[in-house]
Amino acid sequence: MRELMFEVITIEEARQKIMENWRPEDKVEKINITDAWNRIMAEDLVAKENVPGFDRATMDGYAVNAEDTFGASESLPAYLSLVGEVPMGSAPEMNIGLDETMAAATGSKLPEGADAVVMLERAEAMADGTIAVYRPVAPGENVMKRGEDVTPGQVAIPRGTLVRAQELGIISSLGIVSAQVYCSDKVGIISTGNELVTPWQEPGPGQIRDSNSYTLFGLVKEAGAIPKLYDLVPDEEDAFRNTFEKAIEENSLVLVSGGSSVGTRDLTLKILEEFGEVLFHGVAIKPGKPTLAATVKGQDDTLIVGLPGHPVSAFVAFQEMVKPALKRHLKTKVPKAAVWGELQKNVPSQAGREEHVRVRLVEEQGKVFVEPILGKSGMLSTLSRAHGIMVIPLEAQGLAAGTRVPVTLFKEL
Amino acid sequence: MRELMFEVITIEEARQKIMENWRPEDKVEKINITDAWNRIMAEDLVAKENVPGFDRATMDGYAVNAEDTFGASESLPAYLSLVGEVPMGSAPEMNIGLDETMAAATGSKLPEGADAVVMLERAEAMADGTIAVYRPVAPGENVMKRGEDVTPGQVAIPRGTLVRAQELGIISSLGIVSAQVYCSDKVGIISTGNELVTPWQEPGPGQIRDSNSYTLFGLVKEAGAIPKLYDLVPDEEDAFRNTFEKAIEENSLVLVSGGSSVGTRDLTLKILEEFGEVLFHGVAIKPGKPTLAATVKGQDDTLIVGLPGHPVSAFVAFQEMVKPALKRHLKTKVPKAAVWGELQKNVPSQAGREEHVRVRLVEEQGKVFVEPILGKSGMLSTLSRAHGIMVIPLEAQGLAAGTRVPVTLFKEL
Repeated sequence: MRELMFEVITIEEARQKIMENWRPEDKVEKINITDAWNRIMAEDLVAKENVPGFDRATMDGYAVNAEDTFGASESLPAYLSLVGEVPMGSAPEMNIGLDETMAAATGSKLPEGADAVVMLERAEAMADGTIAVYRPVAPGENVMKRGEDVTPGQVAIPRGTLVRAQELGIISSLGIVSAQVYCSDKVGIISTGNELVTPWQEPGPGQIRDSNSYTLFGLVKEAGAIPKLYDLVPDEEDAFRNTFEKAIEENSLVLVSGGSSVGTRDLTLKILEEFGEVLFHGVAIKPGKPTLAATVKGQDDTLIVGLPGHPVSAFVAFQEMVKPALKRHLKTKVPKAAVWGELQKNVPSQAGREEHVRVRLVEEQGKVFVEPILGKSGMLSTLSRAHGIMVIPLEAQGLAAGTRVPVTLFKEL
Repeated sequence: MRELMFEVITIEEARQKIMENWRPEDKVEKINITDAWNRIMAEDLVAKENVPGFDRATMDGYAVNAEDTFGASESLPAYLSLVGEVPMGSAPEMNIGLDETMAAATGSKLPEGADAVVMLERAEAMADGTIAVYRPVAPGENVMKRGEDVTPGQVAIPRGTLVRAQELGIISSLGIVSAQVYCSDKVGIISTGNELVTPWQEPGPGQIRDSNSYTLFGLVKEAGAIPKLYDLVPDEEDAFRNTFEKAIEENSLVLVSGGSSVGTRDLTLKILEEFGEVLFHGVAIKPGKPTLAATVKGQDDTLIVGLPGHPVSAFVAFQEMVKPALKRHLKTKVPKAAVWGELQKNVPSQAGREEHVRVRLVEEQGKVFVEPILGKSGMLSTLSRAHGIMVIPLEAQGLAAGTRVPVTLFKEL
């Protein structure tokens, strides 16, 4: 009757309980910009200068005072005297006056007196050295103004931003060569159970190799944190306690997986209650129900999450409850990207729990089909064949074939 | 008239030309499984054993011969003699015979004679040591059969698979501790132009800091390849030639960006034609039109791609034309995941080119809106404010406000 005794909470409640009870210190570090890629900004990056630092031509052509071109047309061009050429990467050697122009390439600084650029294609160099302009330009046309991209004092990159390629670009364009980012969380991974051996050991009768540790290792990396694997823990109280003590000292989050037998589960609960307080045990999600979370006495910055032993269950529970906590510094909240497709088969579900169904995407004649991958939650191969997850909501009793459904990919491919 | 002279090809043609003319040797390396995460498998990983290696209970309960339970009901239970308990992680010490059962925990090995497990909740231990079973089980129920996940000889992970968390799990469950993966491509990054200084230099009049190198650095990393930055190249033939020679020797792909002035562009073309053959110059995409690709004489395994100088243009051109080439080993082809939302404003576009519009996602009252971010393609800040890209097809003349559109995120957030 053990399973039925769980007091089950919703995924949303589980996520909240984890967030509320886990208060790791926000450690930051200053790193070189090329190392900042894929990290999260721990400071508002404030610009100290204008980008660009001067009015720049965005086209090849002639720098002009726009007014001098007003009224110009194919039949009645404006004629301007070409007084020189702006050298690339230095200041123009002169200003331009009334009805004067200078040749300017894309990226070059506009001379004083100019406020627009006439594209090469809209002008013609005459034999006498004057330039015929066939169409008027507006002030600012084909020019990127000083400070148009970024101005001093502006928050160029807010705290909580994921540093992507474009943020590296901004940081470097501002002359900033290092940035303060949040330190990645350290996550300890413990697998328990007498039945487990390491991948490099030959399993005896009744034994299997530990795979959850390595799946979790990958998931922790995908969440931007730093995984640390611990030795396998047999169902012995002392071994349990020792490994736990070490792990909660060295990490701010500890994942315990396995312990699928009654004995291990009881032992896990016993030790967790000794170390702190069990926040919840049982979540209305399938697979992933027997997930639990526990605090550590006197250590507000440490949390222990117990994941189910079945690999698919541990995977789904991690994605739904642990990953959001590891991404807490990320301020950018956008809906999850999904691939929409047509469900190939009816998928039944039981109301009262959110069901996460492994699916594979199949493209046929330009149409996307969603193929549910059935199989016990002990089958890792089903997770590997799947491209992502389709969710059947808490109160739904399944989805009918032909329904258009969103699929969240496990990882961008 | 220079820009108009480009013989423009479509993006699809550009991608194909790059793929056809770039034939880098597929180098592979054997690495430890924890280092294999996010790499691409270079071999079919063939299982040498069964997973699981024996029939395993997937529930806590009683191992039975299913036949002994047929016909059992609440009013007429099947009574079985409890002959022992299967120890976790070792072989059962005995077999079960007719009307016999053994207690078995989730994950334990079924004794000989058993082919199903009765869940704890469906049975009751009587005072006399017999077990009352209240519902019949089918053969195989609550059991994961030997080899149900993976069987020997089966390709557990095909070549060309991205190693995600779940693949690490499979590899370890098979007792494989290292795997052969493709070596990441080395990509040289060169920025050219007299106007450029490094981020840590103070720009003089008319100069700007190089930001493209760092944006491309991030994009190359996001594509799973290894970026290498070269010193800035001024508009001098010898400097150009020297840096190119070094870069094509050290990398299989070389990205040249910048060179926005007429002089630099001409110089780039001159040198590229000296080194090999220009495959195309100009693509029907906005921004990103002046992209070019060139082969290297006598080096089938090397390609040079010239990216536009404007940061947004270089970004889009990389994503659309370079990234697919870097991901050529990936066999899994699924449609791009997107967030769908309602376009907030009309966005005009010119037919005859595919327009890539930077957009930001805004959630209001549970509804997702897509806000186009306008701004010159020289403005990096627009890329940083954007969450992703919305594409206006080649022949469309824009999209109306209110249209539901898919947005491809730059990076999973």
